[in-house]
Amino acid sequence: MKLVTLDDIAAAARRIDSAIVRTPLLAARWGDPDRPLWLKPENLQPIGAFKIRGAFNALGRLEPGVRARGVVAYSSGNHAQAVAYAAAAFGVAAHIVMPEETPTVKVQATRDHGAQVVLCGVGQREAVAAELVERTGGVLVPPFDHPDVIAGQGTIGLEIAQDLPEVASVFIPISGGGLASGVGTAIRALCPDADIFGVEPELAADTAESLSVGHRVDWPVAQRNRTIADGLRSTPSELTFAHLQRVLDDVITVTEDEIRSSVRELAHRAHLVAEPSGAVALAGYRKVAEPQGPAVAIVSGGNIEPPMLADILARVQ
Amino acid sequence: MKLVTLDDIAAAARRIDSAIVRTPLLAARWGDPDRPLWLKPENLQPIGAFKIRGAFNALGRLEPGVRARGVVAYSSGNHAQAVAYAAAAFGVAAHIVMPEETPTVKVQATRDHGAQVVLCGVGQREAVAAELVERTGGVLVPPFDHPDVIAGQGTIGLEIAQDLPEVASVFIPISGGGLASGVGTAIRALCPDADIFGVEPELAADTAESLSVGHRVDWPVAQRNRTIADGLRSTPSELTFAHLQRVLDDVITVTEDEIRSSVRELAHRAHLVAEPSGAVALAGYRKVAEPQGPAVAIVSGGNIEPPMLADILARVQ
Repeated sequence: MKLVTLDDIAAAARRIDSAIVRTPLLAARWGDPDRPLWLKPENLQPIGAFKIRGAFNALGRLEPGVRARGVVAYSSGNHAQAVAYAAAAFGVAAHIVMPEETPTVKVQATRDHGAQVVLCGVGQREAVAAELVERTGGVLVPPFDHPDVIAGQGTIGLEIAQDLPEVASVFIPISGGGLASGVGTAIRALCPDADIFGVEPELAADTAESLSVGHRVDWPVAQRNRTIADGLRSTPSELTFAHLQRVLDDVITVTEDEIRSSVRELAHRAHLVAEPSGAVALAGYRKVAEPQGPAVAIVSGGNIEPPMLADILARVQ
Repeated sequence: MKLVTLDDIAAAARRIDSAIVRTPLLAARWGDPDRPLWLKPENLQPIGAFKIRGAFNALGRLEPGVRARGVVAYSSGNHAQAVAYAAAAFGVAAHIVMPEETPTVKVQATRDHGAQVVLCGVGQREAVAAELVERTGGVLVPPFDHPDVIAGQGTIGLEIAQDLPEVASVFIPISGGGLASGVGTAIRALCPDADIFGVEPELAADTAESLSVGHRVDWPVAQRNRTIADGLRSTPSELTFAHLQRVLDDVITVTEDEIRSSVRELAHRAHLVAEPSGAVALAGYRKVAEPQGPAVAIVSGGNIEPPMLADILARVQ
């Protein structure tokens, strides 16, 4: 299986440069003094999440004649908005398949970017997307299972290595594994001494188990869906799992309370609004004591429903 | 009276470059389409506010032999932490005079930067600071009434002009006026066609009144203290007022509800935690309809007490 390379990621960085925010590394001075903490605030991207990097790279890689036929994606979350946003920027049509139970606010946000939203029943989204590809001639942009998407997400790792070459550890949320595959590949190449940690909710720790047994273990979706970190309920593909096996040093699992606590910590101390999935990397940092030296936690997204944010912040720490 | 120049600000930018975060301009796509909105997130600075720019410039300008005697400041807010942080970075002592009623969390945050906090009674802080200057031989760093502080804050305007030279309007919170003096000076010089708006709470609108009558009008401190925007309760000095008269096109006043609403908007849509004082510029943008073209609102700080943040976010929009 051909894995994404540092060259692929460097090319992606040039391709998406004008479309994304070059997020600064923010010093979180209240971290462990032996492991000074830096935050990479990807919640500040347009659409509020890192997913825009992969989407822009995937669309940018298409031949113009192919891209003009439009794109298709299925997602109930940040990938939907990322593809819709990128398609609008390229001036091409986007059809986004979303489950019927998707909150109205997310459906509307996707429509606001100019995409056509197609609602579907449980378990139907891949079939509906395939039918749309057939009918429109559009190109399917998968949320993580594609080299161009992985390379796009990997640009975060490139930026970390540029801004903090002495980084000793990087903490990355894991769901389908596209982000960790890309960032891990960049860091492994540029900062070979750094430890690369994936972080998962305990309630959706399929990747931790899979890596420990050496092959992909299937956790039923109903089980993964128990976590409040709604962006971390996917499971790696063969492609991303092959990357994760190669680049990760370990996977740390965190509890739901630790995730909520990290949402509070980011709001109160870093002045950042993170969604639960965007706060797990910080929770992972809190769970380990090594290695010493600068640590980076990727705050992957900020799209949290206002009532959930209010509820989490109202709890005593 | 000698006013701060663009050269002073450019020199400040070189001086503070390695100490501050070069905050990106964030596109707020949900703004008025005719006046695309950009946010300058100064709440992401170390200490959570723009004040670090002026403090670093003021300390950086001191002769090393003078600086070694330490610095003194009086403040119950962000300036206290900014001076404490800058003094620690330069390896010199800091004495910070704070009113006895300052929330413990702010006193502790200032101590955490290594400063010695001296608590004092109501109305005593300037006298206590003067006594400390006398006793320690340290240099007083005022919160806004100093050219080096104004020049430091002005570096924000320089960055806006670099990143968005076509800017048509800039919205800046006004309290003592150091921020608006510096940013206004930079924008007036580099983007002469842009409109420069100061923004004040209606409950502390002394500058709006002063500019309309052409001289400084004194609002009693008890009156200014009514606003929840606790960073906007100061009043300009002769020096800052002279700058404001020259650089501002207008002052917009906003209600307490408009301020709270902007705190919510920044959290939910921009994924930024702003203190009330840091949200007024956005509230000001919402109050006007012109000029067309790109607008920048400075999110000046994020140091809001957790219970107040929870309370504001719990209210229905």
